[in-house]
Amino acid sequence: MSMSGTPNYSSSVGGKRADFSTIASGFQGKVRVQTLLRKTPSSLQSPGKSMKHEMDITSATERKLVKQLRASNTHSFVADSTPTVNGKYQKLTEDWESKKLDLITGGRLLQDGLVYRQNISVRSFEIGGDRKMSFGALLNHLQDTALNQSRITGLIADGFGSTREMSRNNLIWVVSTLHTVVDRYPTWTDVVEVDTWMYASGKNGLGRDWIFRDSKTGETLANATRFFLYHCPRFIVHECSVYVMMNKKTRRLSKIAKEVRDEIEPYLMDCECPIINKDSRKILKLDVSTADQICTGLSPGWNDMDINQHVSNVKYIDWILESVPRSFMERYYLNAMTLEYKKECDMDSVLQSLSKMVGGGNSDSFSANKVIEYDHLLRLDNGREILRGRTVWKLKDTNS
Amino acid sequence: MSMSGTPNYSSSVGGKRADFSTIASGFQGKVRVQTLLRKTPSSLQSPGKSMKHEMDITSATERKLVKQLRASNTHSFVADSTPTVNGKYQKLTEDWESKKLDLITGGRLLQDGLVYRQNISVRSFEIGGDRKMSFGALLNHLQDTALNQSRITGLIADGFGSTREMSRNNLIWVVSTLHTVVDRYPTWTDVVEVDTWMYASGKNGLGRDWIFRDSKTGETLANATRFFLYHCPRFIVHECSVYVMMNKKTRRLSKIAKEVRDEIEPYLMDCECPIINKDSRKILKLDVSTADQICTGLSPGWNDMDINQHVSNVKYIDWILESVPRSFMERYYLNAMTLEYKKECDMDSVLQSLSKMVGGGNSDSFSANKVIEYDHLLRLDNGREILRGRTVWKLKDTNS
Repeated sequence: MSMSGTPNYSSSVGGKRADFSTIASGFQGKVRVQTLLRKTPSSLQSPGKSMKHEMDITSATERKLVKQLRASNTHSFVADSTPTVNGKYQKLTEDWESKKLDLITGGRLLQDGLVYRQNISVRSFEIGGDRKMSFGALLNHLQDTALNQSRITGLIADGFGSTREMSRNNLIWVVSTLHTVVDRYPTWTDVVEVDTWMYASGKNGLGRDWIFRDSKTGETLANATRFFLYHCPRFIVHECSVYVMMNKKTRRLSKIAKEVRDEIEPYLMDCECPIINKDSRKILKLDVSTADQICTGLSPGWNDMDINQHVSNVKYIDWILESVPRSFMERYYLNAMTLEYKKECDMDSVLQSLSKMVGGGNSDSFSANKVIEYDHLLRLDNGREILRGRTVWKLKDTNS
Repeated sequence: MSMSGTPNYSSSVGGKRADFSTIASGFQGKVRVQTLLRKTPSSLQSPGKSMKHEMDITSATERKLVKQLRASNTHSFVADSTPTVNGKYQKLTEDWESKKLDLITGGRLLQDGLVYRQNISVRSFEIGGDRKMSFGALLNHLQDTALNQSRITGLIADGFGSTREMSRNNLIWVVSTLHTVVDRYPTWTDVVEVDTWMYASGKNGLGRDWIFRDSKTGETLANATRFFLYHCPRFIVHECSVYVMMNKKTRRLSKIAKEVRDEIEPYLMDCECPIINKDSRKILKLDVSTADQICTGLSPGWNDMDINQHVSNVKYIDWILESVPRSFMERYYLNAMTLEYKKECDMDSVLQSLSKMVGGGNSDSFSANKVIEYDHLLRLDNGREILRGRTVWKLKDTNS
């Protein structure tokens, strides 16, 4: 699996926005947008100016308009427009360019608001017996930074991920697929820099990527301007997820309606999961009769439900790891995980977790191999499939 | 239960240190310590000066010496000493007074380092289905802030709570009792200000208290000097715990040896759990035959172990709540919890969680009561007691 960095980091400060394939680009206006964007780097280092704009939420309609203006990237706007119209468009573009600082988390919008960056200090309760941050704790911060971006851009209405149109129609986001690669787990007191952004994924999916970087300065929590220094980061975690829409009442999946597309589209990057070359091998449903391990009687606890009455994604990870032998996990660390969610379970569900070693060894003899793969299946007691997944494990460095 | 604030807040900036009852106060020197302490308030508002001292860890021996000097609070030191000795003691006192800023968490030492204060922003993954921070998430931050205080004072050696002498002798801290009162649970994006401090609890216990306050300014994360403004906080959570020492290899409790006392004693406040008038009623062992609810087959997962190979305290809370009916928890919130840990369990333990409604109603009829109490028991399958506890629940305000 090969990786690259956050899109457009060194090539251009202004991010490149995306279209859902069904959205027509009907607006033909022309504007000097690129010229304005080139001015961004110096103002990025002015937190005072950023804070002034904190509550200036530009509406989705305005953002879409500016995006369409940008799409027609020529320099003839002044000649084609009256001074008043020119002034209006310039104001919109400046708002759109405003760098918003979130005073609650210390997070910040970059690249025209398309990328959200936040520093996270690893807490003592987020590490496990091996002193490393747990995989579940990493996943918690994926959800949290995604919500923070949507919150400070004003995209969400109900406080937990749904836009205004989604709330009106009882729609919520649920994870469809998830692919994570962890090169190195941070430990207690490490400070990790997280970047995340969204993009269209087919007609009815919303893609979101994350990069976690090691941030060794230790000063970023106290000095917000340091967020913008590029300091040859060491990559730690890469993650790509695809979300789909579910009706909160019927619990059935839903297409993305035009009204919702119009809300989301101005916040999308023009890329599709560029940070990881996906493992293209299809994950077959695990044949129950060949499973190495089966754990039964698994059910969510009171604290595993989120405000959408949805079992938290981290709980699914816990269940998957229940069926990996502990003697194996003492010697290997989880390097990559791919999950495909098939059906949600509820508070009263009772599940089984099954796993089978499929690459690099078998359950009786794995000690000579540096990389081991497992296939996983979560299913209800009645056999209905909830999730299928693949994990890749690497031999721990006993010196670290 | 009545409550008060952090000790010595308004009466004096300098905190009052404590003795273990077995430590003799043999040093008879006299020094103008109070005069120096009175100078503290103005320097508290100078973060630049605080940061300069960040790595000036005064040794336990020096801190104890200064404490003994303070204990003999007279003004005749200059006359009794040579100028060189006088200069030395003055330097020690200034180091001891230094206000340390933790750049990783934004936390800070107050009251001569006896009190640690840190702001916490509530994350999306820390709230439950009712949009409130979970009790377990609160407990996570108790542990974390305690460790942060010990870390930045230099008291701990192994990175997870043990002093140098404790590490040499394979000793770790484990919670013996815990008493928490929650007046109001914060929600996502709330910023909570936490104060914590330690005190001697009998001959072989270490007491620690916490106060969580609502911090509505939202500016404290970005402006460290605001940590020192007193802004009529609304109390949220009060917590008292007592820790005892356990041998990491034999898993048996241990007395606190003199060498360990000498390390800890300079960091102790002279108080014993002043923030909550404890519920003095003895918690009787729950009679199994009268339990309302019994959950069986509970066992820790891979991620529930900490680096001391100890099941995390939050997991015990999860198990306790497993035996409280969900229909009840939908209508009542957990207002107070008292736990007495009797024996630790390990990775392979299989437990039972039992509960019985003991005050304010019974399991068939509780709807008319605003306050309900439960008794709890966690035990191994073989009947051995792991923990006993009492919880107090209050009717939820349906308007909030």
